[in-house]
Amino acid sequence: MDLNRVFRYEIPTAIEFGNGAVSTVADHVKALMGTKVLLVSDPGVQKAGVTQKLIDVLDQAEIPFRIFNEIEPEPDIEGVMVGRDLAVQEGCDCVVGLGGGSALDTAKAIGVMLGNDGHIRDYVGINIIPKKGAPVIAIPTTAGTGSELTIWSVMSDKKANAKLSVGSPFNCPNLALCDPELTVTLPPHLTATTGMDALTHALESFVNKATQPISEGMSMQSMKLISQSLRTAVSQGENLTARYDMLLASLLAAMAFNSTRLGLSHALAIPLGAHFKIPHGTVNAILLPEVMEYNLVGNIPKFIEIAKLFDEPVEGLSPRKAAEKSVFAVRQLKEDVGIEETLSDYGVTEKDLGFIVEEAMMSGNVPVNPRKPTLEDLKQICRNVM
Amino acid sequence: MDLNRVFRYEIPTAIEFGNGAVSTVADHVKALMGTKVLLVSDPGVQKAGVTQKLIDVLDQAEIPFRIFNEIEPEPDIEGVMVGRDLAVQEGCDCVVGLGGGSALDTAKAIGVMLGNDGHIRDYVGINIIPKKGAPVIAIPTTAGTGSELTIWSVMSDKKANAKLSVGSPFNCPNLALCDPELTVTLPPHLTATTGMDALTHALESFVNKATQPISEGMSMQSMKLISQSLRTAVSQGENLTARYDMLLASLLAAMAFNSTRLGLSHALAIPLGAHFKIPHGTVNAILLPEVMEYNLVGNIPKFIEIAKLFDEPVEGLSPRKAAEKSVFAVRQLKEDVGIEETLSDYGVTEKDLGFIVEEAMMSGNVPVNPRKPTLEDLKQICRNVM
Repeated sequence: MDLNRVFRYEIPTAIEFGNGAVSTVADHVKALMGTKVLLVSDPGVQKAGVTQKLIDVLDQAEIPFRIFNEIEPEPDIEGVMVGRDLAVQEGCDCVVGLGGGSALDTAKAIGVMLGNDGHIRDYVGINIIPKKGAPVIAIPTTAGTGSELTIWSVMSDKKANAKLSVGSPFNCPNLALCDPELTVTLPPHLTATTGMDALTHALESFVNKATQPISEGMSMQSMKLISQSLRTAVSQGENLTARYDMLLASLLAAMAFNSTRLGLSHALAIPLGAHFKIPHGTVNAILLPEVMEYNLVGNIPKFIEIAKLFDEPVEGLSPRKAAEKSVFAVRQLKEDVGIEETLSDYGVTEKDLGFIVEEAMMSGNVPVNPRKPTLEDLKQICRNVM
Repeated sequence: MDLNRVFRYEIPTAIEFGNGAVSTVADHVKALMGTKVLLVSDPGVQKAGVTQKLIDVLDQAEIPFRIFNEIEPEPDIEGVMVGRDLAVQEGCDCVVGLGGGSALDTAKAIGVMLGNDGHIRDYVGINIIPKKGAPVIAIPTTAGTGSELTIWSVMSDKKANAKLSVGSPFNCPNLALCDPELTVTLPPHLTATTGMDALTHALESFVNKATQPISEGMSMQSMKLISQSLRTAVSQGENLTARYDMLLASLLAAMAFNSTRLGLSHALAIPLGAHFKIPHGTVNAILLPEVMEYNLVGNIPKFIEIAKLFDEPVEGLSPRKAAEKSVFAVRQLKEDVGIEETLSDYGVTEKDLGFIVEEAMMSGNVPVNPRKPTLEDLKQICRNVM
C-alpha cells in the first residue's frame, strides 16, 4: 500500500467471546450501569428458544427488562423510533440486542436515539451522530453481519423503497457478547447465506483500495476460517467447533471492514435488497463470485492470496490463472452450501437493471472497489446471475 | 483453545498510521477538545529533532503547549506527579506523549492523574483506576513498547528499587498516532533492542495460555513483519519500508498482548530492569531465545508455527526438531542485529539470582506462561545468558 496514506483503525467495542458467554450478560449490564434493559430481538430467535436463555439470566440476576420483539427481516427505520419510545416509557437505560443483523442494527440505533435528539433519519450518513447514547450490548445469533461491532446500522425505508445507513463510532455497541452456542439452532440455509455474507465482508475489505495491513490480517484470518468451517456449520449445525470458527470469522471480518468499507457486491446488494426484498446474505452470496471475476484484474496478487487461503493449488500457474482459482474456490463453496438462488428468482428483470445500477453507483463502496466499474459493467455482473 | 473459555478483547485506542501522520496532531487535539497541550517527551527525542516537528505543527495551528521533557529512561513514578502538577498549573487539558516507552508510559499516567484523585501509586495493579482522565495522544518514536495503545504504564520506584505497573483500559491513550518517519533517526542498537522487545511481545502473547484467536492473528502478522524487516531497519535506518513494517509490527504486537499478558521474559525483565538498570528492550532481547528454548516443550505446535513465520525449513523434521528451528531463527536474528550483551555485563552475578527469580515468580506473566517454571528453572534461564 501507499506508505504515505494515513489510515485510521478503530474498534470502540469490547469483545467477549466463548461458549456460554451469554451467561455473563447480567454482569455486563451492571458494569454499564444499566438498571432496566430493553431487549431487542425478533420472533425467529424467540421461537428457537434463544431469547429464553437470555431472559433466564436476567431473571436470575433480578434485572428488569422489557422485550421489544417486533423486528422483521430488513427492518423498517420507523421501528427504531417505536423502540426508543418504548424504552423511554418503560424507563430502560440499557439496550441488549439479540439476533441477526436486523435486530442488532435496530438495537444499536435505539441506543443512539436514547442519547440524541430528533429522529434516526437525521443521522443517516457517516459520522453524523453527535454523541454516544445509552449503552448497548450486542449478542449475535447469526455468523454473518458482524453488526455486533460495526459502526453501521442498515435499515429499510419501506415507504421510499430504500435502504438507509447510519455509520458512526457512536453507533458501535459497548460490548459484543459472542456465544457460539446461540448459533447452533440457525437453520442450514440461513447458516449458508449469513456465512457467505461474512465472507463477502472479509473479501471485499481485503481487495479494496481503502484497506490497510491491520484489516488485511483480520480478513485473511476470517477467510481461512470460513474456507475451513462453513461447509461443516451448514452440514452439521450442532458442530460447535465449526460454529465457533464461523462466529469468530464473522467478527474478524467486521473488525476488518469497519475501517475500510466494502465493494461492488455490497453496492449492488443495497438496491437489490431494497426493491426486491432479497435477504442481504443471499444477495451477497449470489453476487460475490461474479464480482470477484470482474474485480480480479484490479488486484491479481490479492486474488492469488485468496486462492491460497482456500488451499487451491496455484503453483506452476501464471498469476492470472492463479488468481482465477479464488473465483473457482468461492463458487465451489457457494454451491457446496446449497445456494442456488438467482436474481430472477426474486423478480429482477433486464428492465430493472437500469435503476439498480444507478443506485448502486452512488454507494460509498464503489470508489474503494479495486476496479472502477461502468454502469454497463454493473449490469453485466447482474445479468450473469439472473 | 478451550472453546468454553470466554475471552475478552478490547482496544479502546483509535489508531492513525502512516508517514507524515504527525502533521495531523493539531486536528486530533481539537477533536479531543484540548485547548492546551502538555507535551511529554525526552531529551533524546528532542536532540534528534523529532520534538521540533511536533512543535511546528502545534505552533502553526496556534495550539498552546508546555513541554515536560524531564523523562529519563526507566522513568521514576514521581515524575508522573510532577508532570500532573505542571499540567494543572499551566492549565493543560490534553496530554501528548512523544517518545519511546518511558515518555509514553509517563504521558498516559499523567493523563490518568488529570482526572483521578490521589497519587499514581494508588492505582498500581490491574483495573484499579476508577475513570478516564484527560485525553492522551501517544506518538511513538521507537518500534518496540507498543505503549501507544496498551493498558500498561511501567514505572520505576527508584527509592524502592522496584518497577510498578499500572494497567487499565482507562490508561489507554485516546489515539495512537503512528508516523514511521519519526523513527528513522533511531540509532541502530536502539532499533535492534526495541525491535526485539516487540518480537518478545508478539511471541510471548502467541505461545501463552491466555491467548485467543484474535491476538494470535495479530501476533503472527507482527512476527512475520519483524522477521522480514528488523535486520533492514537496523542496517539501513533510513529505509522507510522497513521502518513502516517495524512500527506496524510493534503496534500489532501490542494489539495482541494487551488482552493476554506475556511470559517468562517479561517476568524476569522487571526485576532485572529494576535492580540492574538493564534497558527493557535489551533484557528481553537477551532472555528471549533462552525462554523459548525452555518453553518449547509446553507448546510444540506453536513453536513450529513461529519457525514457519521465520521461513525456517521444517519439512521432514520431527515436531520437536521443527519447533527448535524457532529458537534457532530468533537467536540468529538477535545476533544479526548485533545484540551481544549478557546479564553479567550489567553486573548480575550468581548470588543475585535468588531474589531476582523470587520477584519474577510473583509476576502475572508467570501463570500464563506455557510451561510452569520452578525457581531453579528461572535461575538456569538467567545463567545461560550471564
